[in-house]
Amino acid sequence: MDIAQESLRLHEEWQGKLDTVPKMEIKTREDLALAYTPGVAEPCKKIAADPALAYTYTQKANTIAVVSDGSAVLGLGNIGPLAAMPVMEGKCALFKAFGNVNAVPICLDTQDVDEIVETVKRLAPAFGGINLEDISAPRCFEIENRLIDELDIPVFHDDQHGTAIVVLSGVINALRLTGKKKEECRVIVNGAGSAGIAIAKLMLSYGFKNLILCDKCGIICSKSEGTTDAQRAMLKVTNLADEEGSLSDAMRGADIFVGVSAPNIVSEEMVSSMNDDAILFAMANPVPEIYPDVARRAGARVVGTGRSDFPNQINNVVAFPGIFKGALEARATRITNDMKLAAASALAALVSDEELCEDFIMPEPFDPRAVEAVAAAVRNCVAD
Amino acid sequence: MDIAQESLRLHEEWQGKLDTVPKMEIKTREDLALAYTPGVAEPCKKIAADPALAYTYTQKANTIAVVSDGSAVLGLGNIGPLAAMPVMEGKCALFKAFGNVNAVPICLDTQDVDEIVETVKRLAPAFGGINLEDISAPRCFEIENRLIDELDIPVFHDDQHGTAIVVLSGVINALRLTGKKKEECRVIVNGAGSAGIAIAKLMLSYGFKNLILCDKCGIICSKSEGTTDAQRAMLKVTNLADEEGSLSDAMRGADIFVGVSAPNIVSEEMVSSMNDDAILFAMANPVPEIYPDVARRAGARVVGTGRSDFPNQINNVVAFPGIFKGALEARATRITNDMKLAAASALAALVSDEELCEDFIMPEPFDPRAVEAVAAAVRNCVAD
Repeated sequence: MDIAQESLRLHEEWQGKLDTVPKMEIKTREDLALAYTPGVAEPCKKIAADPALAYTYTQKANTIAVVSDGSAVLGLGNIGPLAAMPVMEGKCALFKAFGNVNAVPICLDTQDVDEIVETVKRLAPAFGGINLEDISAPRCFEIENRLIDELDIPVFHDDQHGTAIVVLSGVINALRLTGKKKEECRVIVNGAGSAGIAIAKLMLSYGFKNLILCDKCGIICSKSEGTTDAQRAMLKVTNLADEEGSLSDAMRGADIFVGVSAPNIVSEEMVSSMNDDAILFAMANPVPEIYPDVARRAGARVVGTGRSDFPNQINNVVAFPGIFKGALEARATRITNDMKLAAASALAALVSDEELCEDFIMPEPFDPRAVEAVAAAVRNCVAD
Repeated sequence: MDIAQESLRLHEEWQGKLDTVPKMEIKTREDLALAYTPGVAEPCKKIAADPALAYTYTQKANTIAVVSDGSAVLGLGNIGPLAAMPVMEGKCALFKAFGNVNAVPICLDTQDVDEIVETVKRLAPAFGGINLEDISAPRCFEIENRLIDELDIPVFHDDQHGTAIVVLSGVINALRLTGKKKEECRVIVNGAGSAGIAIAKLMLSYGFKNLILCDKCGIICSKSEGTTDAQRAMLKVTNLADEEGSLSDAMRGADIFVGVSAPNIVSEEMVSSMNDDAILFAMANPVPEIYPDVARRAGARVVGTGRSDFPNQINNVVAFPGIFKGALEARATRITNDMKLAAASALAALVSDEELCEDFIMPEPFDPRAVEAVAAAVRNCVAD
């Protein structure tokens, strides 16, 4: 099957991937009187008197907005809000299919940070959460941080944190398998955009101590030129020895490589220079930083990619539906770092000691236990 | 049954009236590859190259936003966006149940005209139309007019135009029944807010010549104090003799009374003073301007109200689903006055000569023919 052609044909048939379906029949005057006027006035009055009752009487209980400005869509770049719609509709379909969370695609006709923030704030009454999607760095950091501060519902940029959670879950199991200790590992994260920085932050908060961020110019250090504010801020907690050099230099002796960067930039020699039992997550898509067979031949013990046709696929779909399911169920007002750590651990724990091996460190994208494991982890953090 | 209590109970059970349901199964890797990555990249690229293809590949083809700021909700007034949600969700449920139009409730956390306009414009990429709802006058006029000018999708304030269409359809059939000629009728519209002014405008464009707007202070004339811009603008086309006086004065000799005003403000004497075969639409809710039995006793021939427990219910639900269904099917860029006139005539024509009588001048709210009759009328206007 030609995926591209078949996808086009199906998208034309679907004309949008979502139906908004009433939960009740409206076939009689009585139905109308209960779901609409005059009965609807009662929940309205209750909410007017006590805004918290919006969670009792409206879709705020279980509906989120998937918000994008179309500035960083998949591998397509800045294609704008209209062209981003098929992706956002698809994301909403996944929220429902995997998490039973209602999700509404919102593609904004602006790429101005202030305008995006104010628009999302104005939309917030209808929604119990905001999933930011495919917004380019560094704008995505400010947008997310401001919305977290200024809204009382959870805001989550999946490209950052969903990816970080799933990577960390794989890392946790790779440590289980190899016996490496997180405090002793040298970790290289290559690609210092939104995903790379979020991965680095979550790994540090999990307990890794020795982590170096790299980008196109090699190791990010105090002398690096052209770094972003976010990259410079990371220097306070990464590359504490202020190493300089290329990606090859960074990888020498490393235990873990995480790539969210570009195709084919990791060579066999670079893998061979890593520590024993090297762990690689090569997530550039569709062509990874290094192919798994090549990496294994060069001495890597565990290799994950973003692709479904290799073992150990890093796929956010095991995380984001459960994150919002749990947050909505617990009426969390934000997604905390503890929730992300708990979600990663919960995903890792789905792989039993018997199952755990080089080719199986992650739950499959369609593992039906993933959503509830993540949701429970999130809920428990609220209960704490 | 206690409608209020039962409605509260059901709203608590529903926790939102809508589900966003994927149109496809997502159970295998292949499903995922077609509905999401990597297949979704194809329609994205097509739309990036030709924005018009958003109607081919996205929900823009059949999805509207129901937008409110919660400033004029039902009879509840300015209860704000959160408390307005049950109404907007209900409206969306009706759009789907009656018109198979997907509709998304959006309640905006602002009541500033400029902010509402700019926010709706920023949301527009995801939607094929905007139904404005329960926004107070005179703000609703400016918001609707600016959005019509600045967007290339249909924008429709149902409180104004849906009501006007349904009233006109009833009026058309009341003329059929009584033999009155529109050019010769004296028409009184009481209540000069958004609905009253829209009704007056549509009736004038249909061919009525002699129409007087009244409000709390009586006949609106050149000497009226405290009139709004919109009311003053109407003086160019209404009350051409510049009559002064009370509502009682206005109704003397009138053929048609349309009330979108307040309970019990029309007396038997006022009805008795009207012309023979008087036609009254007393739409204040839940208590009409005059009860039908009282009006009939006083000499009225045809009486309609907003209530489902009397004959001739004026209910927008026969109009708005078909308006957007037709507009979306025809890819209309706006809802024109011709469409509104055509919709009213199409609704009127659903009542056959045999059926037409004092107690049956309107299709019932659940008449399954209404949506297609209105949609066809709208489509035909685009084809013209």
